[in-house]
Amino acid sequence: MANPIAATALDQLFRNARTPNDWEPTPVDESTVHALYDLVKWGPTSANSSPARFRWVRSPEGKTRLASLAMEANRPKILAAPLTVIIGHDLDFPNTMPQLFPARGEMMRQYFSQPGVGESTAFRNGSLQGAYLIMAARALGLDCGPMSGFDNAAVDLAFFAGTRIQSNFICCLGIGKPQSIFPRNPRLSFEEAGSFA
Amino acid sequence: MANPIAATALDQLFRNARTPNDWEPTPVDESTVHALYDLVKWGPTSANSSPARFRWVRSPEGKTRLASLAMEANRPKILAAPLTVIIGHDLDFPNTMPQLFPARGEMMRQYFSQPGVGESTAFRNGSLQGAYLIMAARALGLDCGPMSGFDNAAVDLAFFAGTRIQSNFICCLGIGKPQSIFPRNPRLSFEEAGSFA
Repeated sequence: MANPIAATALDQLFRNARTPNDWEPTPVDESTVHALYDLVKWGPTSANSSPARFRWVRSPEGKTRLASLAMEANRPKILAAPLTVIIGHDLDFPNTMPQLFPARGEMMRQYFSQPGVGESTAFRNGSLQGAYLIMAARALGLDCGPMSGFDNAAVDLAFFAGTRIQSNFICCLGIGKPQSIFPRNPRLSFEEAGSFA
Repeated sequence: MANPIAATALDQLFRNARTPNDWEPTPVDESTVHALYDLVKWGPTSANSSPARFRWVRSPEGKTRLASLAMEANRPKILAAPLTVIIGHDLDFPNTMPQLFPARGEMMRQYFSQPGVGESTAFRNGSLQGAYLIMAARALGLDCGPMSGFDNAAVDLAFFAGTRIQSNFICCLGIGKPQSIFPRNPRLSFEEAGSFA
């Protein structure tokens, strides 16, 4: 068993991390985005299927387009943040299995191509990868503003046209303004959220 | 912008973390399970909806039952691991919104009760919480063995009877045997997994 990571790191990842609602204009360097992906990619997925796909929206045109497809309350956040990533998952991910799982690629391609299996695998594991992204971004010192309030079908058409990638959620990344953070809401107790068996 | 956490912590969470396929019998203390939940619970979810529910399976009877409902290849892992958690999500989570989001609880309860909204919100955010659990367990020095290969409907009946909780995936927790780890599979490049917009 490894030692726990430092308490300050646990604070940064979990205990003190908060979701800002407004952002400093400071850009997120391209090298930071690559460093972020180079952590996210190692997170475990079912048979290494890695179905998540990322659109890193940073251009003024991209931000305006994405904001126009978001719920009213989310628009100013997308326009203010230097970068908002669209986390999607590729329904064609089974075709990558020979590359991602060389020992059993063709078998896994066929398995994930079964009706009903591919979509839930993509949604489940793409969501896991979205959470790895949130954790990795916080680990690198970035603030995260994850959001579900947008028109998924319209975002797919605008940012994933010509593919079978479906948007899942979006996440602003950058330096949040501390004064834009709401008071923290309560959480379920251990007993409310689960039990031993 | 905060500083990045230590490189050794990034290794422990992402770069060096691997999925074992066999386990030491060393138990996971109940206090560690509570410490784990006390990190997981802080991870962000849509409107703080926190739909994940956890069954911490550690009794011999529970492990035998769960193993019997898993794919052949996963049975010995569940029997060997000191603890396997079933990550589920509660389709009745909208009813917790007044507790979890006091400022707009009734509004959010109604919003998430709309047909189609609740199920995808529960699956997406329950999956995020499952990934937070993997990251938090690794942060505490535990190894993780996440798996999807089991009979979800039968597990729901055996472990979540009388509720609207649906199992999502399961995850062995404990100290993995290093010699049971497979060689690491390749990952998609930055460009294969996404692009700037």
